[in-house]
Amino acid sequence: METNTANASSPVLQMPQLPRTDEGRRMCQVIKVKPEALDEYKRVHAEVWPEVLGALRKANVVDYSIHYFEPLSLLIAHMRYVGPHAEFRKKMQEISENEATRRWWKMTDGMQESFIPGATGSEDPKGWWSGAEEVFRMEG
Amino acid sequence: METNTANASSPVLQMPQLPRTDEGRRMCQVIKVKPEALDEYKRVHAEVWPEVLGALRKANVVDYSIHYFEPLSLLIAHMRYVGPHAEFRKKMQEISENEATRRWWKMTDGMQESFIPGATGSEDPKGWWSGAEEVFRMEG
Repeated sequence: METNTANASSPVLQMPQLPRTDEGRRMCQVIKVKPEALDEYKRVHAEVWPEVLGALRKANVVDYSIHYFEPLSLLIAHMRYVGPHAEFRKKMQEISENEATRRWWKMTDGMQESFIPGATGSEDPKGWWSGAEEVFRMEG
Repeated sequence: METNTANASSPVLQMPQLPRTDEGRRMCQVIKVKPEALDEYKRVHAEVWPEVLGALRKANVVDYSIHYFEPLSLLIAHMRYVGPHAEFRKKMQEISENEATRRWWKMTDGMQESFIPGATGSEDPKGWWSGAEEVFRMEG
């Protein structure tokens, strides 16, 4: 038969027939873009500040993409954190303390609408982008 | 200043200060999951048929993930095609002709609702999942 007996209890589903790779923690996050701000959002991302990219790289965040899903005016971000597991929170904190990143967020927050009730922006401890749950992964 | 002069005319925005990498064509696709089918959808993906993964790998599709976004009952798929550019269509066609993949789709299509008007399933030439547009990419 074509089925096998994966361990389905893990919150991050593993492919049982693949060796566990160490390609890092993959995250997917979603937010709305205000339709009237879409062109400006694309424009600033085509000219992203090098300091913002630098802060991501310094925090071991790689393979970062944002896609736009027109029917629901969604922005979908994907990224991988490839640093040591124990440093994840610290590294995310460092991004949020980066001065250029904070100015970048001040600019882009106004183009977005969060799904998180009452959230006021990227520096809000409640969060701004919403996480999506991984339900399938095939690394290679 | 923190801006630079990216070429924003490409449909796939390139990061100007990075060398153009050859990490392949990244695709992001979105569909709805019927809320009552979510648990079953997760379950079958935790025990995915090896033949289905094999067909993807044979078609040079890697780094495939599906995330679930609860507030809108969305499934978000990400994947990279890393084969020769000229063979992309042929390889996608091969996936759709794979017998196990077709049976897999017959099973999962019923758990989903397409955003494409009138689409009847994964074998519909109109499509089933909807593509999302890349608006930002940082490779490494």
